[in-house]
Amino acid sequence: MKFGGTSLADLDLIRETARRVKAEAEAGHEVAVVVSAMSGVTNRLVDYVDRAAKLFDLREYDVVVSAGEQITSGLLAVMLQDMGVPARSWLGWQIPLLTDEAHGNARIENVDTSEIVRRFSEGQVAVVAGFQGVDVQGRVTTLGRGGTDTSAVALAAALGARRCDIYTDVDGVYTSDPRIVAKARKLDKVTYEEMLEMASLGAKVLQTRSVELAMKHRVRLRVCSSFDDSAGTLVVDEDEIVEKAIVSGIAYSRDEAKVTLINVPDQPGTAAGIFGPLADAGINVDMIVQNAAVDEKTTGMTFTVRKTDLDRAVKVLERAQPDLGYGELSADPNVVKVSVIGVGMRSHAGVAQSMFKTLSEKGINIQVISTSEIKVSVLVAEEYTELAVRSLHTAYGLDAD
Amino acid sequence: MKFGGTSLADLDLIRETARRVKAEAEAGHEVAVVVSAMSGVTNRLVDYVDRAAKLFDLREYDVVVSAGEQITSGLLAVMLQDMGVPARSWLGWQIPLLTDEAHGNARIENVDTSEIVRRFSEGQVAVVAGFQGVDVQGRVTTLGRGGTDTSAVALAAALGARRCDIYTDVDGVYTSDPRIVAKARKLDKVTYEEMLEMASLGAKVLQTRSVELAMKHRVRLRVCSSFDDSAGTLVVDEDEIVEKAIVSGIAYSRDEAKVTLINVPDQPGTAAGIFGPLADAGINVDMIVQNAAVDEKTTGMTFTVRKTDLDRAVKVLERAQPDLGYGELSADPNVVKVSVIGVGMRSHAGVAQSMFKTLSEKGINIQVISTSEIKVSVLVAEEYTELAVRSLHTAYGLDAD
Repeated sequence: MKFGGTSLADLDLIRETARRVKAEAEAGHEVAVVVSAMSGVTNRLVDYVDRAAKLFDLREYDVVVSAGEQITSGLLAVMLQDMGVPARSWLGWQIPLLTDEAHGNARIENVDTSEIVRRFSEGQVAVVAGFQGVDVQGRVTTLGRGGTDTSAVALAAALGARRCDIYTDVDGVYTSDPRIVAKARKLDKVTYEEMLEMASLGAKVLQTRSVELAMKHRVRLRVCSSFDDSAGTLVVDEDEIVEKAIVSGIAYSRDEAKVTLINVPDQPGTAAGIFGPLADAGINVDMIVQNAAVDEKTTGMTFTVRKTDLDRAVKVLERAQPDLGYGELSADPNVVKVSVIGVGMRSHAGVAQSMFKTLSEKGINIQVISTSEIKVSVLVAEEYTELAVRSLHTAYGLDAD
Repeated sequence: MKFGGTSLADLDLIRETARRVKAEAEAGHEVAVVVSAMSGVTNRLVDYVDRAAKLFDLREYDVVVSAGEQITSGLLAVMLQDMGVPARSWLGWQIPLLTDEAHGNARIENVDTSEIVRRFSEGQVAVVAGFQGVDVQGRVTTLGRGGTDTSAVALAAALGARRCDIYTDVDGVYTSDPRIVAKARKLDKVTYEEMLEMASLGAKVLQTRSVELAMKHRVRLRVCSSFDDSAGTLVVDEDEIVEKAIVSGIAYSRDEAKVTLINVPDQPGTAAGIFGPLADAGINVDMIVQNAAVDEKTTGMTFTVRKTDLDRAVKVLERAQPDLGYGELSADPNVVKVSVIGVGMRSHAGVAQSMFKTLSEKGINIQVISTSEIKVSVLVAEEYTELAVRSLHTAYGLDAD
């Protein structure tokens, strides 16, 4: 069972969380609980470090920001004991949950569950501080924002858990963002692959890495609400879903910005020349389209970067202009990436065509297209976000009755 | 260098603390810094646990309340690095600072300084989270309120430090409480013994246990302000003080309450009969006076307990009345213990007599008297606190010019 910060925001909510844990334990299950910090606490700690120094040692950052989960793990253990449930807290170094040395964004290498399992046999619930681990140097590490999801999945995998329940402030995974699509439906099941695409597209129910890990170790995830008792959404292997919808959801990301280079010399090495310097600057490029050459000597290149990287990307490219020899550079932050996602489209043609037709009927111009096996994404002007998402949601038959 | 919560209350103050540490390091010293939590943080964490359960597991209490020092240790390390001073944080379990298993009030058993010392040779400052340690089970322990003083002294002893500077919100140890004695003077030096008496009498500059530890290991303590650059007060061995004042200070404690038993059978075993049940109930008794027998069969017994223990003490004694056979019990919380302290009184007679005379001249009735080698204490009505302390301060020539 994993509980996020909104489920642990104050002592009353922690007590409510303890009740849920008690119910599972009393149903005869062996339970490990992974907890986030009280909501707001991690942000405050991150802010402290940000204000302490412009450039900071990530090893010290980890010492500071891991304190929040430490607090909730102790408090939840105390409350469980108070309700008569044997429990103890586990900090990352105590388990140990061993990670690499990439402080601030470490990867889990090993989880030693031997002592936790031994205590299961004595009826003890393990309350694990999420988001944190320890490296071979004995320094505290953290797993990156949302890392408690990853802690929970890694622990579930190491324990061979029957299920990993992610308790959060929404009651499951939806066909689209309910804030802009009133008719969005909750999905009973979704595949790991679909969940990955949704997570990476801004439907931030789960940390992307936690879904990858769950997929790799075949951990059955359940996303459910800590504020009601609905069944939530199961994130499972494709084989477990008998009736596959062609399209499971419509996602969008406002996090993108578009860069266009005009009159780029059309010769071998052009792409490498453009994307090499961007990669060196640590800037990720997402969608890429090489336009048809206008004449036989030059071409156009359009691609997207994260909105927060746009200014840096422009500077890098302007500096490289003499080498690249492009004619003109234009940057546009006012774009949105809208995606149609579904494992069913592997075996169904025409999904992309329906998308283009729907958007065209609404007068929405498509600027860039990219596709994967289970996803079609288009870049459109940001002002069309709601219209595009709602129209597609209706067109693919996803609207609730 | 040890810094309390008021010296680390916000980022600006932590930066100011970092500047002080930097100055010491740049003067060529090998520096270990021991830090408290930001002021208010530990209280908030203690409050969380108190509200989480009526009876709580002290092992979990320690997990929760030790988080505050973890945060400041990381922040101070970051700021030192930002100022170009090599530094790293050390949590109790990382050193390790080994304690017994008395969670919530653990005693330090061993401090392994080998790695800290090795890094001194590389110019690295050790920033140690105070108040916390680890037991042989690998569980986090804490050292009781004010325990960061004890962490600092233990570390200084283990390192063989030349000095242990306790930075706090006062600029040293005074001849009396400056809040009630305007003419109180700061002492340049005070002995361990005197400091112990002052600490145990409510002059809460240092945790009593830290002074005991400093005395045992001959750690030279300096109490000084983190808000100015005055020299503070040195707490040292008696041999280091050449000109010993007969009386060094006037302390008081409002923490006492008086219990009187009248017509107690005067026979062997009376005292044991009274104080046995109190000890069994965990109630500490301080001053004790057995009154002269009124006749040959009964006597009176007066003693003090902590004000917070008074109600329980009365209940214990009422329950034991049939066994004890005393006539009447009276309890009075409105008393204060006033003490004259000074190692010089070992070799000077008449100190107690001057005290009695001074109080008598002011019309202050003495209810109980107790003495030790370097202290004379009297119990008087609480309303005379200021008058008694000020009169004695003047009488022993302690007033500032």
